[in-house]
Amino acid sequence: MKVGIGILGGGTVGGALLQYLINEQKAIVAKTGLELEVRGVAVRSLSKTRSFPIPTGLITDQPEQLVDDPSVDLVVELMGGLEPAGDLVMQALQAGKPVVTANKELVATRGAELIRRAEEKGVSLLFEAAVGGGIPIIRPLSESLAGEQITRVLGIVNGTTNYILTRMSEGLGFAEALEEAQALGYAEADPTADVSGADAAAKTAILASLAFGTWVSVDGVYREGIESLDPVDLRYAADLGYLPKLLAIGEETPNGVSARVHPALVPLDHPLALVRGANNAVFIEGPQVGELLFMGPGAGGGPTATAVLGDIIDAARELLAEAQVAPRIRFAPGRLLDFGEVETKWYVRLEVADAPGVLALVAGTFGDAGVSIKSVWQEGRGEDATLLLITHDALESNQRAAVTALRSLEVVTEVAATIRVQSDEP
Amino acid sequence: MKVGIGILGGGTVGGALLQYLINEQKAIVAKTGLELEVRGVAVRSLSKTRSFPIPTGLITDQPEQLVDDPSVDLVVELMGGLEPAGDLVMQALQAGKPVVTANKELVATRGAELIRRAEEKGVSLLFEAAVGGGIPIIRPLSESLAGEQITRVLGIVNGTTNYILTRMSEGLGFAEALEEAQALGYAEADPTADVSGADAAAKTAILASLAFGTWVSVDGVYREGIESLDPVDLRYAADLGYLPKLLAIGEETPNGVSARVHPALVPLDHPLALVRGANNAVFIEGPQVGELLFMGPGAGGGPTATAVLGDIIDAARELLAEAQVAPRIRFAPGRLLDFGEVETKWYVRLEVADAPGVLALVAGTFGDAGVSIKSVWQEGRGEDATLLLITHDALESNQRAAVTALRSLEVVTEVAATIRVQSDEP
Repeated sequence: MKVGIGILGGGTVGGALLQYLINEQKAIVAKTGLELEVRGVAVRSLSKTRSFPIPTGLITDQPEQLVDDPSVDLVVELMGGLEPAGDLVMQALQAGKPVVTANKELVATRGAELIRRAEEKGVSLLFEAAVGGGIPIIRPLSESLAGEQITRVLGIVNGTTNYILTRMSEGLGFAEALEEAQALGYAEADPTADVSGADAAAKTAILASLAFGTWVSVDGVYREGIESLDPVDLRYAADLGYLPKLLAIGEETPNGVSARVHPALVPLDHPLALVRGANNAVFIEGPQVGELLFMGPGAGGGPTATAVLGDIIDAARELLAEAQVAPRIRFAPGRLLDFGEVETKWYVRLEVADAPGVLALVAGTFGDAGVSIKSVWQEGRGEDATLLLITHDALESNQRAAVTALRSLEVVTEVAATIRVQSDEP
Repeated sequence: MKVGIGILGGGTVGGALLQYLINEQKAIVAKTGLELEVRGVAVRSLSKTRSFPIPTGLITDQPEQLVDDPSVDLVVELMGGLEPAGDLVMQALQAGKPVVTANKELVATRGAELIRRAEEKGVSLLFEAAVGGGIPIIRPLSESLAGEQITRVLGIVNGTTNYILTRMSEGLGFAEALEEAQALGYAEADPTADVSGADAAAKTAILASLAFGTWVSVDGVYREGIESLDPVDLRYAADLGYLPKLLAIGEETPNGVSARVHPALVPLDHPLALVRGANNAVFIEGPQVGELLFMGPGAGGGPTATAVLGDIIDAARELLAEAQVAPRIRFAPGRLLDFGEVETKWYVRLEVADAPGVLALVAGTFGDAGVSIKSVWQEGRGEDATLLLITHDALESNQRAAVTALRSLEVVTEVAATIRVQSDEP
């Protein structure tokens, strides 16, 4: 049972996959009965030096030709980015070839269109590796839990920022922590996609789409990055028993679906506080199944290549069965909540004049905006003081209105920081 | 896309599944495109009162007829036990009907034979619900990780014993903790299958078989239950920083595959120590993927029915594709390690005469058997003393030989307890 494979992309994951397919071919045949034969690897530069050299018979810089090659039964897209990856994936599907991709950006942006095309052609488009690296999460969501009405997806889906935040909560500044992450290979030279939350937002779009059966594009995900977190607040947060995390949250509510990525303070004894370093962890909740946790290495060549290989084996089985593949999940139109309609809790740091009645004025301002305060701490004495507040759940729009109103109070020198708080157990 | 379903068994899981299929039919159609129509539910007693009444048009006490019914495309076996469940599953496969089962005992005992028959007939035999209740673990192992050379599976797969051990480590005796678990519905009236480790052994057999691609029958799993754990040792263990857990362990070593279930002490900061109450958790390790954790409710009608439903949807998709289904994992013959060949660490409690030279004599006896001691504590003074030892890794056969030799020492009044220790991180 031979299946010809064309790999688009010769980077870390492509290299790890190729190495594994070549070195472990016998073991894969023994375990799956499938002979997965690599027919070509399309790269950008033929001359680049690689940690795992691509055999000369396989390497090419003509990806379109590789996709069209009749000996290629199945296309694996590991180039990343929207183009030319998107057109190549479309070309493969159009030719009736199943596609396996690790490209979260592409799936989160053009997923609906690509899945529709795959459906029309009766072939699979699989993307387990797009979220959570080696952690099986896409297949459990779209197959094992296909019949469940999932209500929430909550997790840490970006290892780079989790590493940086772990180190920041240990006392490092953002720049220092980022530099360390880069030195260790956890962060790229240009860390924008990670620290801005863009990477996590793409993954959140995919998770929410599969969980709720309503397609959420990456543009529908509210996003804040970690760049502007002040170490001062992380120290205060630590004193109050909280750790900072970049959270990916998808929720199904009676009014619609919400998908968002932003930094949040979680209590030290919260299960997500235990996810340290570059790990990923995702909780899935539903009325029947309760709470499930999936945890593991969220990135890296080996783990990601394992997820890609699992998809290849799945697609190859379907290919050999010569079946018209029915879609795994159908997407129905659904309402996407505006972030203002979502209930959140806030940590707020205010620099205030240390005068009698300040707290009453601040609390009244929150109250007028429909936000009630859970706890308050005052730091410092004398002329000026720092007020730390944690609110109860309230509409995000009300929290923002409260902060705007605070800014106009004479006794408030500065609204120095606002960070969301996620304290309920997943 | 209609699929007719015959359910064998009207107990907790069968009832939860039926209720869900009836109440959520529209939601399932919207999400999956499949109309899953229940054509009959076979029960032992037609007159029994049930929390969810089975409609009169569906209920039957003739399971063979239901399996043979031409309007039944897919059979769901939720009776439990070896017979008549096994023959009915075989009858369905023989008729070319895919089967979904939650029956761990059946799969762990006759799995190899049933899978072979399903393969011959080109239909699926799916059993996600047999291990870990609602936690997707079978599909990740057999599909997402199909290409990985998994080296270890380590976890807690029986919620009843985990609840009892959690309560025992909080000070309750075994009988008291069991009674409480029964009152809460976590333990059955006859708790033998749980407390003896038989339930966990069946699940371990299934996990090890899928992980290593070598069929391990339940008879090949070494098994010890929790009945004989002495609260005295759990108190000592707590003082030393350990918690008791009933562990399910599967390992692939250069000499063969090991599968075992036994109580073990784990350090308080070990990830498995955090799994409290009736939860299940499974770690999966491989050279490429690293360490993955799957956690969630390991039993109960809702979670288990969710897993069954995921399998039904999967099998229904294949059915509608009219494909000959290729096997997911192929099993190759492999060597099963004798438990004596496995390396373990032991906690040993000795009652000894408090005389000079006793420790040297005890340590020498361990050493002669090839076991070195990691740490020793002495409790009590005067005539008699209690010696607590934790050994380093050594062959299980050597640990046993050491204990036998200790029994013959005059200074050793009693080898009062031995419990294995699992201190390495998964």
